Amino acid sequence: MQLRKVKILGTGKYMPSRRVTDEEMDRLLGVPAGWTGKITGVGERRYAAEGETSSYMGARAAEMALANAGLSFADIDCLVCTSGTKEQPLPSTAVFIQQAMGQEDSGVPAFDMDATCLSFLNGLDVMSYLVEAGRYRRVLLVATEIASAGLNWADKESAALFGDGAAAVVIGQSEPEEVSQIVYASMKTYSRGARYSEIAGGGTRRHASQYSAERPEPFLFSMNGQAIFRMASKLLPEFLDGLLAPSGTRMEDIRLVIPHQGSAMAMRLLRQKLGIAEDRFFDNTRNHGNTIAASIPMGLHEAIAQRRIRRGDRVLLLGTAAGLSLGGLLLDY
Amino acid sequence: MQLRKVKILGTGKYMPSRRVTDEEMDRLLGVPAGWTGKITGVGERRYAAEGETSSYMGARAAEMALANAGLSFADIDCLVCTSGTKEQPLPSTAVFIQQAMGQEDSGVPAFDMDATCLSFLNGLDVMSYLVEAGRYRRVLLVATEIASAGLNWADKESAALFGDGAAAVVIGQSEPEEVSQIVYASMKTYSRGARYSEIAGGGTRRHASQYSAERPEPFLFSMNGQAIFRMASKLLPEFLDGLLAPSGTRMEDIRLVIPHQGSAMAMRLLRQKLGIAEDRFFDNTRNHGNTIAASIPMGLHEAIAQRRIRRGDRVLLLGTAAGLSLGGLLLDY
Repeated sequence: MQLRKVKILGTGKYMPSRRVTDEEMDRLLGVPAGWTGKITGVGERRYAAEGETSSYMGARAAEMALANAGLSFADIDCLVCTSGTKEQPLPSTAVFIQQAMGQEDSGVPAFDMDATCLSFLNGLDVMSYLVEAGRYRRVLLVATEIASAGLNWADKESAALFGDGAAAVVIGQSEPEEVSQIVYASMKTYSRGARYSEIAGGGTRRHASQYSAERPEPFLFSMNGQAIFRMASKLLPEFLDGLLAPSGTRMEDIRLVIPHQGSAMAMRLLRQKLGIAEDRFFDNTRNHGNTIAASIPMGLHEAIAQRRIRRGDRVLLLGTAAGLSLGGLLLDY
Repeated sequence: MQLRKVKILGTGKYMPSRRVTDEEMDRLLGVPAGWTGKITGVGERRYAAEGETSSYMGARAAEMALANAGLSFADIDCLVCTSGTKEQPLPSTAVFIQQAMGQEDSGVPAFDMDATCLSFLNGLDVMSYLVEAGRYRRVLLVATEIASAGLNWADKESAALFGDGAAAVVIGQSEPEEVSQIVYASMKTYSRGARYSEIAGGGTRRHASQYSAERPEPFLFSMNGQAIFRMASKLLPEFLDGLLAPSGTRMEDIRLVIPHQGSAMAMRLLRQKLGIAEDRFFDNTRNHGNTIAASIPMGLHEAIAQRRIRRGDRVLLLGTAAGLSLGGLLLDY
């Protein structure tokens, strides 16, 4: 059984200070004016400035999520960083978030969960079982990403697509009389697509000491957008059926689909292919770009803030990730 | 309630091919003959050779765990890499393990969980709730580490301490008539000690492009062993009480304590401080060294292989990790 009486108690978001408009991006990339806007549809993305580390941004988003839930850090008994990138190879980013929240002596367990762009979705899915079982009363999930640190400026299309930022969500048990619950979730990983998007260097296979300024590519983000799109298009319809069928949910029962904001084009094609009405599809790409694993919880935060969803509404979080993974989570907000 | 009817179905281990004896280590470090043996008590550690990537080693350990459980990959519905290091920054190492097992089209969800040296213990704890709830029938946990990639040879003591290797464990539901269960688990993180052991460079805060051969230290492992030991010594007695009290377990009820194999000296002091009898304390340092998160599941695998524990025996997994985190898990094997 998958139904979990778990509730989203509060959400938060932090956008770093440096604004990079499409116009500035055109200049940075050395492309004709208008190119970035046409290709990405982002408008403006944010980049982390000096001092805006992953943990700093994550801590600020977490504080907003706690405030929106009417809670303080003392109400939290587990902190999970659900990001696709890490602040440093060791220790886990969650540790630095705990520290950046001024909670160095709290003892609150802190660890990372990584499923690249689906890290938050998977973290919410997994940790909801521990909340349901009463192991942890309230879990703080934080997705915080600095994509700009690893972009390949020679690959103009991917460089223009990404943005930095953080989002956080607090979850807890739903009271018996409350409608909030997680209905069903699924993730599937097909490692045939393992290298369709990757940062090859910087881990144990190719240590930073092998970095060369003449050939920096292995240490930068690389993406085969076409291959990802082909593979995802083929797998997604059946995946979505498998996600909705167990609970008898039809697409028209879903108030809002909050997709991973990969790219405006990918999302448009996804929406059409899956037959999702435009007014039930949350597009948060504009002014954000692809913020890796922060993208879905940012969308959730914005959808709540903009009152696009209300308590009891059925919501679908949906996305693909490097891996290649597909993930979906159906919840009654 | 914490009791989970979850069982260890099988364990496996992979040791890479390159043997580095204490004598060779003396030469590598340029220290007098006998120094390494005296300081570390390791005897021999293994280093990954060409082709022995994290995912390769993890896949071989996983295959042994499946074979020992009498299962095949088709019986697994989730693959979690519980390592403190990553093969590459993106995507997750679990993806590459799935690939290295020849299961590229399996769709089995694959993601990473990182609590540095406690990654396996925490992964076992967390994922057992999903097994208990029936979300996943059987989960494959893999800890695979190449410590040797990031050692600082100028810091002779830490360089001599570590070894590479992998271990894997398959978990599933325990039948009602079976005694196997997870009794209680706890993890606590005190980020006051966040920088007591770390690899500062290689993530988003300090990209590999900042590597310099003249000053490589930020990209290498650094450890303040004294500070860790002081902090851990102070926190561990109360932590252990809190771990045993809820189930009314006394130290004499525990057949075997399997500690994280930090260093022979740290383990000796730990054992004395916590009042654990020598014959109930599993020391696996010799011929392994500190293999980061692979250390505890390697100990579990060896303890089972050597018949130091049998079905129904109460076992305590216990350790500290960069963070600084303390973790313990009490199980009836």
